[in-house]
Amino acid sequence: MIHNFNAGPSILPKTLFEQASEAVLNYTNSGLSILEIGHRTPTFQAVMDEAKVLLKELMKLDNDHEVLFLHGGASTQFMQVPMNLLSDKETAAYSDTGVWSAKAIKEAKLFGNVEIVCSSKESNYTLIPKDFAVPNDAKYFHITTNNTIYGTQWQKIPHTSNSLVADMSSDILSRVLDFNKFDLIYAGAQKNIGAAGVNIVVINKNCLGKVKRNIPTILDYRNQIKEGSMLNTPPVFAIYVCMLTLRWLKEQGGVDAIEKINNEKATTLYSEIDANPLFKGTVAVEDRSKMNVCFVMDNVEIEERFLQYVKENDIYGIKGHRSVGGFRASLYNALPLESVNYLVELMNDFAQKNA
Amino acid sequence: MIHNFNAGPSILPKTLFEQASEAVLNYTNSGLSILEIGHRTPTFQAVMDEAKVLLKELMKLDNDHEVLFLHGGASTQFMQVPMNLLSDKETAAYSDTGVWSAKAIKEAKLFGNVEIVCSSKESNYTLIPKDFAVPNDAKYFHITTNNTIYGTQWQKIPHTSNSLVADMSSDILSRVLDFNKFDLIYAGAQKNIGAAGVNIVVINKNCLGKVKRNIPTILDYRNQIKEGSMLNTPPVFAIYVCMLTLRWLKEQGGVDAIEKINNEKATTLYSEIDANPLFKGTVAVEDRSKMNVCFVMDNVEIEERFLQYVKENDIYGIKGHRSVGGFRASLYNALPLESVNYLVELMNDFAQKNA
Repeated sequence: MIHNFNAGPSILPKTLFEQASEAVLNYTNSGLSILEIGHRTPTFQAVMDEAKVLLKELMKLDNDHEVLFLHGGASTQFMQVPMNLLSDKETAAYSDTGVWSAKAIKEAKLFGNVEIVCSSKESNYTLIPKDFAVPNDAKYFHITTNNTIYGTQWQKIPHTSNSLVADMSSDILSRVLDFNKFDLIYAGAQKNIGAAGVNIVVINKNCLGKVKRNIPTILDYRNQIKEGSMLNTPPVFAIYVCMLTLRWLKEQGGVDAIEKINNEKATTLYSEIDANPLFKGTVAVEDRSKMNVCFVMDNVEIEERFLQYVKENDIYGIKGHRSVGGFRASLYNALPLESVNYLVELMNDFAQKNA
Repeated sequence: MIHNFNAGPSILPKTLFEQASEAVLNYTNSGLSILEIGHRTPTFQAVMDEAKVLLKELMKLDNDHEVLFLHGGASTQFMQVPMNLLSDKETAAYSDTGVWSAKAIKEAKLFGNVEIVCSSKESNYTLIPKDFAVPNDAKYFHITTNNTIYGTQWQKIPHTSNSLVADMSSDILSRVLDFNKFDLIYAGAQKNIGAAGVNIVVINKNCLGKVKRNIPTILDYRNQIKEGSMLNTPPVFAIYVCMLTLRWLKEQGGVDAIEKINNEKATTLYSEIDANPLFKGTVAVEDRSKMNVCFVMDNVEIEERFLQYVKENDIYGIKGHRSVGGFRASLYNALPLESVNYLVELMNDFAQKNA
């Protein structure tokens, strides 16, 4: 068995692969592959409907919040969010907590004024900024709730009177939050929601229709809301995989239940990092991400040997991002506690052999 | 066996389903599903590279033409094309040959002037316009090479000195064309190239960088060219399915070989429509599509019975688009001649029983 710690696309529930594999051959005994069925059929409409209902239920969304399954990935949202929410002369507030935040900021500047209200760039993004104020007149305040590359996470969602917008690509559905407090949430599916190729947008519909610019049809959220995410042919299979993942999460007991396991996984691994003399964490302890655990060694040569050692022992995807180095273990929802325990064992063994 | 005549998402080669199904369980014996591997791994890079090389080879593209695999579907291209190619005060020429052309025209108007140089709207889009002129100063001339809903197809690509842009969603790779004559070709994959969830763009790179506006990063083709279609996480599985489809097409002998079979399929079905007293074609004979064959009956009640009859006999996806009515048999590359022969038999049987 391979233990998949990849940062994304990443591990999905094992039972899902069997179902998805069968669906590619013969979807619900129709004699057709899910890859060749029409998207405007009752067969696929049922998949889309179930995925939406599950997401609304798991996130406990109120009726103002609409759920969309869109093409384009979170990077498309970097520009689509300000295009829909920010008028030319208005100001949006952004927090700068990593490469992905910075990319979101760059795109927002094409549509209005951007005020960066806090940044951890000078600390190499190893912490979440604490003391800052968001101007009352900022149209919205954008945060990246979890920073995949650096392994930091907003442990508390900042209190602000502003409209909140969040890129939750790498921690959506991993912990209990009051999702209704956000006016817009977006997330690429390929971490906690499914496979690559679809993007989730949760949006308070009351925010829409307030900017004056001409928005291309496909980029206007209102059109996708009206068409039930089927303004054009949706990524059928990717949405099906989301639906299976959401079903699995519900079976696990939902977000409350998975949060407990996620906490246990993170505690287990961080405890080992703190106890083991060979390893050390890279970010401020209070801002440590429960999804992406980044750690290094003092000696780059030993790092190489450790990487080799875990690879030989069926660990996949643990090399750190090139901008941070060292290691990154991603502990998304579908990663079982057993995989973390196994990794900790290897870290222990390696330390003993290299004492 | 189900005979899949659906207009899209549509039939794919049978052998592909087995390979794709296995890849979802265990990709190339890696112990990992293709749904959980990183996109920046040699494993996936090999898929992307092979898909690109195959497409360039099958389309006989020169070195000026780049191949992109993008998110968003052809509907995204309706706005992305003029955003990248048309400056505010310039004019683009469009042909209006159906709903999809009309949607492309609507988006182009957001970015510059649009001159509709020909339209078959008054004929309910049942023909391809013949006599028209494209102004020399038009920045480009846009055509929809095949009109999926109405079943018309440009049999000859119009001669023009202008830069040519084409939506080839429903007939790409179905017939030999000089693809290098086009400066930009786009096509949703879900007909002749693969499953829903990825979009192909072939672009002459010399056209780019000439408009003055600020283009969002994700929508600037130059960025995707530079990043090899991986500016953000690509739709991994959808690209893998493209690669398998392109491999299959090459094994069939490429575009030349598939065109011969496509011609035979179309001739077989149109001959039956013309010979069978119950059926009649809906479009001008010389503009008949070889991909989407539209036909009706005089009597709507008998249409319902025929639809029921073929459904009971394992025919899928043959109901006509709601705006045309009757029937539409889509004969994409992966549909075998046997399925067409079988449909013709049923049409014959039905006519005898209902003489």
